[in-house]
Amino acid sequence: MRTVGVIVEYNPFHNGHRHHLEESVRVTGADAVVAVMSGHFLQRGEPALMDKWARAETALRGGCDLVIELPVPYATSAAEWFAYGAVGLLDATGVVDCFCFGSESGDIDALRRIAELAADEPADLRGRIAEGLSAGLSFPDAYSAALRFCLAARGDSEAAAFPLEQPNNTLGLHYLIAWKRLGSRMEPHTIRRVQAGYHDADAPAGSIASATALRRLIFGRGRPEAIASYVPPVTLDVLRREWEAGRAPVGWPALKEQLFHLLVRLGAEELAGYRDIGEGLEHRIRRALPALERLEVDELIGLLKTKRYTRTRLQRALTAVLLGIRKDDWRPAALREGLAYIRVLGFTPKGQELLKRMRKAAKLPVLLSAAGGEGAGLGCAGARYLELDARATGVYALAAGAADPRALLRDYYEPPIIVRPS
Amino acid sequence: MRTVGVIVEYNPFHNGHRHHLEESVRVTGADAVVAVMSGHFLQRGEPALMDKWARAETALRGGCDLVIELPVPYATSAAEWFAYGAVGLLDATGVVDCFCFGSESGDIDALRRIAELAADEPADLRGRIAEGLSAGLSFPDAYSAALRFCLAARGDSEAAAFPLEQPNNTLGLHYLIAWKRLGSRMEPHTIRRVQAGYHDADAPAGSIASATALRRLIFGRGRPEAIASYVPPVTLDVLRREWEAGRAPVGWPALKEQLFHLLVRLGAEELAGYRDIGEGLEHRIRRALPALERLEVDELIGLLKTKRYTRTRLQRALTAVLLGIRKDDWRPAALREGLAYIRVLGFTPKGQELLKRMRKAAKLPVLLSAAGGEGAGLGCAGARYLELDARATGVYALAAGAADPRALLRDYYEPPIIVRPS
Repeated sequence: MRTVGVIVEYNPFHNGHRHHLEESVRVTGADAVVAVMSGHFLQRGEPALMDKWARAETALRGGCDLVIELPVPYATSAAEWFAYGAVGLLDATGVVDCFCFGSESGDIDALRRIAELAADEPADLRGRIAEGLSAGLSFPDAYSAALRFCLAARGDSEAAAFPLEQPNNTLGLHYLIAWKRLGSRMEPHTIRRVQAGYHDADAPAGSIASATALRRLIFGRGRPEAIASYVPPVTLDVLRREWEAGRAPVGWPALKEQLFHLLVRLGAEELAGYRDIGEGLEHRIRRALPALERLEVDELIGLLKTKRYTRTRLQRALTAVLLGIRKDDWRPAALREGLAYIRVLGFTPKGQELLKRMRKAAKLPVLLSAAGGEGAGLGCAGARYLELDARATGVYALAAGAADPRALLRDYYEPPIIVRPS
Repeated sequence: MRTVGVIVEYNPFHNGHRHHLEESVRVTGADAVVAVMSGHFLQRGEPALMDKWARAETALRGGCDLVIELPVPYATSAAEWFAYGAVGLLDATGVVDCFCFGSESGDIDALRRIAELAADEPADLRGRIAEGLSAGLSFPDAYSAALRFCLAARGDSEAAAFPLEQPNNTLGLHYLIAWKRLGSRMEPHTIRRVQAGYHDADAPAGSIASATALRRLIFGRGRPEAIASYVPPVTLDVLRREWEAGRAPVGWPALKEQLFHLLVRLGAEELAGYRDIGEGLEHRIRRALPALERLEVDELIGLLKTKRYTRTRLQRALTAVLLGIRKDDWRPAALREGLAYIRVLGFTPKGQELLKRMRKAAKLPVLLSAAGGEGAGLGCAGARYLELDARATGVYALAAGAADPRALLRDYYEPPIIVRPS
């Protein structure tokens, strides 16, 4: 059973995702798909629209066979560690033969050459990055400028001209860097994205819109049907069900009491103990509070935003405060050791076959719930990450207005979702 | 200007309080009244019904001349440190000649004799307390049993028979212990309370009911008028105004999202870092969450309650979590040093005269807002306590649904309330 791995958020699962899934299967000749999916908080630092079980269901009914969870410290990280966690987990299953990601370029060869240079981290690359940062560039900008310079210096003008700034090219590069560093044997593939504009916010004509655009449509129009023409029927089904149950859509407004409470409660020194906060951001946050017109997270982010502190970075910082992800949880050593378990969120009958093979093949313990973590020898960082995942679920359930207090600990008792072909 | 000090919560200011005020003035022959009042969180560990400025207004319109704030670490403590903070502040004003508290007994002589023994902390007393605690008694029970034994052993059978268990007798005893320890020159007085039952929860006939009963009436009936016959007109005025503005009544339900968020977010180890948590309570709290039927603080407390962990102790523990009052903030050394400022909440013209005299007479810096704390030389614990007071205001304002974000930092800019005779 040839198996392809994909790295997803599915927030929500839309026609572009379905296209990517189908193409991934086609170009790799795969029989089964393993998806590593972020849980309740996402790479841009935002809460997910629907909970991770609902989103896993859309994945499984939409074409994936096994959904495993990317632990929250990786899921809410910038590209480097997001990629490390995701590629590392796919590799650790022991059953994924290849992985396939979307990119603006669709050019795997150029990406591999850039990744080889980047993974080696030569001295001139490190020096150029430092220069860019001290000149006030954001990390992604400093990084791509430095890469470009070093590639040109090595005579690879094609790679030097590669449009690294495009967000999915960058992410793809980091998948390949992680893949190199992990020494993974999975074959990498990339597919050109049908619609480049991840950042486009208006609903375009046709059947494909970015997830960002879909979220804006959902919150703007206030009903699930707003996205009907851009998503497979399964997404509308699940979103409607979650909406009617009062569990979706979740956004910053649902978390604002908790977040502002913490920002008032924590002193600047304590704030500086959380991931992505420091260099004075802790003071800027505290000073921003009385300057707000309304108590809204979006307004806070708007006030704090600068060239250096992008919206994404600020959202990641606020998520760290909300979940209690400390700087200490995010040391490189912890991030390497935290990849200590494979948490299964759901599977199809084919996925169950994969799980059987994983009993022997997997390089890490396979957990069907967070309760499985006890006695699984996860190590300090692994146990901590599993606890952070469970916390994220509790925090998310509260934000989603869970009436049943058992929902706060759902990670410990919820078995994986099983989806059978209808 | 002979001045009497009183120690109050005024949650809300009722006819019994007014009677106590009038009697305090009468028996001491005072011309002016200084009240030390708890801020947004109270001795039983609960949030106040209305904010501290609204309650200070009822105090000033009801007969007090100067209202100063008891910092939150004392205000939410058991009798010993509550009393230390309150008596210490009255003493530190330098203008209070005497203080007067209500008690079930009304017998100042017996209380003074007991206080003398207790303040000395002889070895036999300490031993008896330890025995009581290890036999499973709550601290207040162990303490009063030990005192009784030691008084009898010293032949003071009258004091040994004193009904110490009654809550206001206990509190009064601690006022006198603090007074002795502080070496204060203020004369102590006590008045017999007109209505003994602090704990009585039903609305009695007549014009006097306990504050507990009044809070139940307010929440139970859902309108300010429910307490009209038990409170002076000023209380109804202010409560109505706060109610209409959406700022009152505040109770645990208004804080539940924030509190449950923290309980989910904090690991057991972190929980154990807060005041009043430890000895396994941190684990019991975490285990109680999934056992709840509904996400309500009252239900959580009901589940956790035991003979040893009384409702009051549990509420104090939860308040510590909510505000971030750590064990470290509550060391005896910190509690002694934290009495470092006199925060003025409001005054009448007569209170303004007192403030003028305090410029020379006060033993601590007099602050008209938390902003005055900078450069006032408060020391480490004092600065921390002032910050905790300001935090409590922010937390409370959020719970009260403040629309204006400036309300979160109101401690820093709100000047004292000035009430002129109408």
